[in-house]
Amino acid sequence: MAQISSRILNLNGGGSDGWEVFLKAREMVARGVDVTELTIGEHDIRTHSDILDAMHKSAIAGHTGYAMVPGVDRLRQIVADRVTRQTGVPTRPENVMITPGGQAGLFAAHMAALAPGDTALYVDPYYATYPGTLRAASAIPVSIPTRARDAFLPSHETIRAAAQTHNAKSLLINSPNNPTGMVYPKETLQEIAQACQDHDMWLISDEVYDTQIWAGEHISPRALAGMQERTIVIGSMSKSFAMTGSRIGWIVAPEPLIEGLIALATSTTYGVPGFIQDAAVFALENAERLEPEIAAPFQRRRDLALSVLAEQDTIQAVPPSGAMYLMLNIRATGLSGRAFAEALLETHKIAVMPGESFGDSAAGHLRVALTVADDRLADALRTICSFAKALADQHAVA
Amino acid sequence: MAQISSRILNLNGGGSDGWEVFLKAREMVARGVDVTELTIGEHDIRTHSDILDAMHKSAIAGHTGYAMVPGVDRLRQIVADRVTRQTGVPTRPENVMITPGGQAGLFAAHMAALAPGDTALYVDPYYATYPGTLRAASAIPVSIPTRARDAFLPSHETIRAAAQTHNAKSLLINSPNNPTGMVYPKETLQEIAQACQDHDMWLISDEVYDTQIWAGEHISPRALAGMQERTIVIGSMSKSFAMTGSRIGWIVAPEPLIEGLIALATSTTYGVPGFIQDAAVFALENAERLEPEIAAPFQRRRDLALSVLAEQDTIQAVPPSGAMYLMLNIRATGLSGRAFAEALLETHKIAVMPGESFGDSAAGHLRVALTVADDRLADALRTICSFAKALADQHAVA
Repeated sequence: MAQISSRILNLNGGGSDGWEVFLKAREMVARGVDVTELTIGEHDIRTHSDILDAMHKSAIAGHTGYAMVPGVDRLRQIVADRVTRQTGVPTRPENVMITPGGQAGLFAAHMAALAPGDTALYVDPYYATYPGTLRAASAIPVSIPTRARDAFLPSHETIRAAAQTHNAKSLLINSPNNPTGMVYPKETLQEIAQACQDHDMWLISDEVYDTQIWAGEHISPRALAGMQERTIVIGSMSKSFAMTGSRIGWIVAPEPLIEGLIALATSTTYGVPGFIQDAAVFALENAERLEPEIAAPFQRRRDLALSVLAEQDTIQAVPPSGAMYLMLNIRATGLSGRAFAEALLETHKIAVMPGESFGDSAAGHLRVALTVADDRLADALRTICSFAKALADQHAVA
Repeated sequence: MAQISSRILNLNGGGSDGWEVFLKAREMVARGVDVTELTIGEHDIRTHSDILDAMHKSAIAGHTGYAMVPGVDRLRQIVADRVTRQTGVPTRPENVMITPGGQAGLFAAHMAALAPGDTALYVDPYYATYPGTLRAASAIPVSIPTRARDAFLPSHETIRAAAQTHNAKSLLINSPNNPTGMVYPKETLQEIAQACQDHDMWLISDEVYDTQIWAGEHISPRALAGMQERTIVIGSMSKSFAMTGSRIGWIVAPEPLIEGLIALATSTTYGVPGFIQDAAVFALENAERLEPEIAAPFQRRRDLALSVLAEQDTIQAVPPSGAMYLMLNIRATGLSGRAFAEALLETHKIAVMPGESFGDSAAGHLRVALTVADDRLADALRTICSFAKALADQHAVA
């Protein structure tokens, strides 16, 4: 066989990618085992049928040919208006490119911000695809560690030191955060913004959970002083409208960068299906009705989960201020997140993600996706807590 | 503003990209001018409503969450079976990855075949995105010129010389060809295959027009001796099923390369909408009924066009053996393809692509897309011929 480029052979860094528990749970489900699935960020509801009907209507009406590569005018306008309204930053359609999902946006943003071989910073814990995405863009990923006791918020000193040492060209942040559920406070964002300006870095801001805020306020760093010209925002319809499978999102950035991204998209995707864009237009035009419906169950389950956790003291958790996850600190058991998750699946047929899947900073944690019905979630959490307590008691004795 | 990576700023090579005539025609249409649009490879029909109904049925039934990144099992199996049947090469689902369109497949294939800075060969004339796609993958594009009098077929000596000089790692071919309509004969493909083996290059074979064959036989080079392990085939639903806007295609390649591509796709696209994949399954399961319906008008118009051209002798054309285009040699007029196309649009409201948009080898040519109703096409061609004759007579006198 001819030689395969090494750039696609080592995208997960050569180590285990930590998805064994997820895959094992899928296998068990396929075998008919009744597993409580709390692994991935997939809603337990489907895309609203009104949105799907709008999609079909568009397709049947003939929007089945090539759509314009940057996105259809109407959708770019609606996204621009939405961003202007939500952030106060005047945003034009020319600041917006529609992408086939948030992941494609993350990749394109790093292609735009970095030359091959440049260093790209990202915060640990991180969404599982981040390091691979930076490598796919031929960048060198360098992680910014955080600590559970700091609520997993990055410190600007650590960012500055890494930027300096590696001459980094970009920093990727994610607020509200997957996996930690943290919504970055304004001071944290201001410190990050200043570090980006001082070290001439692009700030790539993954805001795909921006409609799921349970405490505090979501601030887009693009709205901070001096940041409009060095921030690339990633948005998506996936989480906000339960449209994960439609693969549609966007990038908001300075116009010259969007122009470059349009040329890149011409070579890498050739745009997004027009009927899916029309469905997104429909969804965004009906956001007031549809978004709260999608977000409500996660807020309710987040509150429920915290009340279950309040009944015990083995497991610690920083209350999530957004998104659809809960991070459980199970260090008192003496087990790694992975060992705990494997034992939990084996013993109780409950599947959660080991914290280690999201980076070293999340070691000794579990990520629980709040994506099953309330009763089942509460039961699963009670089981996790008593399982942890037994292990911790054993650990204390040993 | 922070610095934008130069890799996305120069994707079209810095020159004009030759699409001015296309854009001007679009502008005129938007102003209400009745332009005969023969520029792009977009069917004059829409995606069949049966396919769209299958898509909607899948979505409403709940296939709206994340689909597996490599593609849904059923679609990978159907594509593998189809390729096995059409080429005789035993092909498994593990040899197939579903992509969001043929363009995404072209980009991914070059990411897999080349390290940043490697040279990638492609044949001139070429589909307009090719050089930009190679640059997007951080490769150095080097073109293989061809001649109209050789029916635009590449010579293996030229390929060998370029491979040698530049230590090239891949060669991109496209048969049936856009823009020339040539279907590469077996001998040409065998010579190309041998050159790829002798110079240890990947052969990236863009076969998105493989259902539109008007003369001769389409041979996939993956079926030639020694080529299965060094050929990456790009397929698509766009042209064969009039699904351009659905953005769905595939890559067929050795299994280890597909494994690498799945990791890449996890970072760059995160898969293709499940409901679109289900629509593709429906279309491919009904290929016997649907495909001939899509192809027939192009064959009919190709024959019609040749009969119109037979009435005159100013414009030369190599009869296209496949695809949906006709290349007209207008060198007798003394004008460049671009000057001719601009004058034609101005004078007769007929929009065609200048040959130069597809490379130097196509200079002095026009590409006519056979994408309007037969009568209108015949009228437009007669007008083009008489316009060319008047210009040629003038040129002969001057």
